Amino acid sequence: MYDILFKNATIVCCDETMRVLKNECLGVKDGTIAYIGENPVDTASRIIDATGKVLMPGFVNAHTHIPMTLMRGLSDDTDLQDWLFNHIFPTEDRLDGEIVKAGTALAVAEMLACGTTSFSDSYFFSQEIAEVVASSGMKANIARSVTNFDKEIEFDSFYGTKEAVELYRNWHRAGDGRILVDAAIHAEYTTSESLWRTLGAFSVENGLVMQIHLSETEHEHNECIRKYGKTPARVFYDAGVLDGKTIAAHAVHVTDEDLDIFREKGVSVAHNPYSNLKLASGVARVPAMLSRGINVALGTDGVASNNSTDLFEEIKLAACLHKGVNLDPCAVNAAAVLCMATYGGAVAQGREHECGTVEVGKNADLILLDFDKPHLMPCHNVVSNLVYSARGSDVCMTMVRGKVLYENGAFLTLDWERVKHTFEEIGMKRLFA
Amino acid sequence: MYDILFKNATIVCCDETMRVLKNECLGVKDGTIAYIGENPVDTASRIIDATGKVLMPGFVNAHTHIPMTLMRGLSDDTDLQDWLFNHIFPTEDRLDGEIVKAGTALAVAEMLACGTTSFSDSYFFSQEIAEVVASSGMKANIARSVTNFDKEIEFDSFYGTKEAVELYRNWHRAGDGRILVDAAIHAEYTTSESLWRTLGAFSVENGLVMQIHLSETEHEHNECIRKYGKTPARVFYDAGVLDGKTIAAHAVHVTDEDLDIFREKGVSVAHNPYSNLKLASGVARVPAMLSRGINVALGTDGVASNNSTDLFEEIKLAACLHKGVNLDPCAVNAAAVLCMATYGGAVAQGREHECGTVEVGKNADLILLDFDKPHLMPCHNVVSNLVYSARGSDVCMTMVRGKVLYENGAFLTLDWERVKHTFEEIGMKRLFA
Repeated sequence: MYDILFKNATIVCCDETMRVLKNECLGVKDGTIAYIGENPVDTASRIIDATGKVLMPGFVNAHTHIPMTLMRGLSDDTDLQDWLFNHIFPTEDRLDGEIVKAGTALAVAEMLACGTTSFSDSYFFSQEIAEVVASSGMKANIARSVTNFDKEIEFDSFYGTKEAVELYRNWHRAGDGRILVDAAIHAEYTTSESLWRTLGAFSVENGLVMQIHLSETEHEHNECIRKYGKTPARVFYDAGVLDGKTIAAHAVHVTDEDLDIFREKGVSVAHNPYSNLKLASGVARVPAMLSRGINVALGTDGVASNNSTDLFEEIKLAACLHKGVNLDPCAVNAAAVLCMATYGGAVAQGREHECGTVEVGKNADLILLDFDKPHLMPCHNVVSNLVYSARGSDVCMTMVRGKVLYENGAFLTLDWERVKHTFEEIGMKRLFA
Repeated sequence: MYDILFKNATIVCCDETMRVLKNECLGVKDGTIAYIGENPVDTASRIIDATGKVLMPGFVNAHTHIPMTLMRGLSDDTDLQDWLFNHIFPTEDRLDGEIVKAGTALAVAEMLACGTTSFSDSYFFSQEIAEVVASSGMKANIARSVTNFDKEIEFDSFYGTKEAVELYRNWHRAGDGRILVDAAIHAEYTTSESLWRTLGAFSVENGLVMQIHLSETEHEHNECIRKYGKTPARVFYDAGVLDGKTIAAHAVHVTDEDLDIFREKGVSVAHNPYSNLKLASGVARVPAMLSRGINVALGTDGVASNNSTDLFEEIKLAACLHKGVNLDPCAVNAAAVLCMATYGGAVAQGREHECGTVEVGKNADLILLDFDKPHLMPCHNVVSNLVYSARGSDVCMTMVRGKVLYENGAFLTLDWERVKHTFEEIGMKRLFA
């Protein structure tokens, strides 16, 4: 007896061969994909007729700062220094745990409604973020982003690393592993060696994923070379930071040698095409990464620099941008970006054994899309329609570990009216009083 | 007595100063915007409470080949020559009037559902396209796209120009001007001087807009210089083609001198950022166009090269792409792209006196967006949210000349089930039998 049985589904597996199954059944039991095939013997508590619908793995947002929903549209189209120093940083200085919870809850609703089942976050007030994620039923890899600038720090007494350790102790593997705690060195230009060595070692010892902003801008990349005589990737390599599992966010301005380091160390790149364009950082060398076999995942970055958490926007852009700037219509095809947004994200999060593809035995982290819409007709190629034509709003169901979290506009683990009210009355009013 | 009165609306006027009115009323009477203000004296047949909603001009899609919906997702990610010669052209050879009508009807539904109220089309079977548009209530500038390659033609006897003239006689200003007939020289590389001279003169004499693909690819641009010793823009200038109103579609590879020609002749550019990326054509020099005061409109191109008609995708991309490739976070701001998609499109179509902005006396070509959604909160800046965060699916009402054509998922001038059935049974089955 399955908990849920999808019938007549088009299933996009996002596995190595990008298998697409037509008119197939998928049974979910105890949070797991228990059956894929034509004729299930068992019946189910709930049968969903998925005729005209597409079932696929949920998206993984491999790089974001989720409470920044509060700052969506706060001063766009401005010089980066003005944006950061006159708008974003002063606002972030006024954050508190309750405000962050309000912003996170809104972001969770936004992500669930557009098919994201897991995200990698680096920010602060991370325990409050974890609390909201835990009760929502989503998955997340949550990191306390640490900066120390030029300050020499003691790992056990510095407030940033203390909070990172506390987060790890309280939340790692919470919700039966739905929540993983990552480490996060904010970036080379906001940190120094005493942090790299100590937080790097802590991360490796405990088997955590390390999240780092790396060579996002040309200025940052070149300043690092001026200061240390080597690139950010090499700096982190030499400090042992890359010895565990790492997500390098952005990696827009990287050298061939940096890419060799990524390949050697199994570093995943979180590619954030919209943020990189909007903040005028440039275009990452994704074709070069893929040709070297580097795992590339997709992220939205914080909404203040996007201004959305909708990965459907990122997959279309990722599939088109590299064609356009490389003048190569075959660069980065639709299947490749769909894998980045699903399996690639799961690899980056260290979750490839539990999710990222549709396979029997994996967690039922699934989304269902309604293809009965003008913009999804005809369907010559379902992968093409998913990447080039679908929108976040085509998601009609989002499920994590077999539990339906969102369906047809309704949120099943959060009270949307209350989330909105708290966002306005606590989040916005307190932050922008 | 208004036909429709919107109350409590946030109105984005898309006028020169990009006025945003908060908590305002807008009255529609006899197809026209009859009132904008706080306290209307008159009542209305229908009152719409637009609290939490945004009212703005409908989008103008300034460049498309609308029946190509039938080829959405037909062979993506392939070499251009393979795509064109092995997939698109052979399929187009099998088109007939009934198939084109089926594809057009689906496209009209798609466009209305994402807030497009008018489009500029160049294709063939144009009378069939006009028929569908006429009954839908939309606006369109429709052109029979003519190619003659190296053939010397007689204007009165060549089938392409004969069809163009017939289209003009039968459909220009049909539907009380909702339909305008344009002329279309397909492109420099598919035509020659006898067509330029004759169709150009016909267009100018009759006050029609001329639609041309211009310098879409580097190859096309350079081959023209090799063949004629001058750029496509100069070729058309010298042949008198630009003496009337012109839409130059793409204009990706243009020189400063070409831009000077556009400015001198008042040529509008239809910028198609997604198509240009996906087909690996490159990135148009939009900042240079805007700084010269050239009118820039937005287009989606045919869906086979996009694969969508959703202008919300184009405005976000247009606002981000030029920042990213020019490494300038202030390039092409949100207000500028919103104007391109509305007023800029109206100018390109020669309709700036009738629509494109929210002003008393103009046609009520309006769209209403529901902002009560997670991805549109908060609303620090409504223009920013429209450009960077909204999606086509946020449109809850589309109106042309005061007539509601789409509302909350329902099409009021077309029978969606029948459109779908005809698309499948006549369009797809006959085309891909």
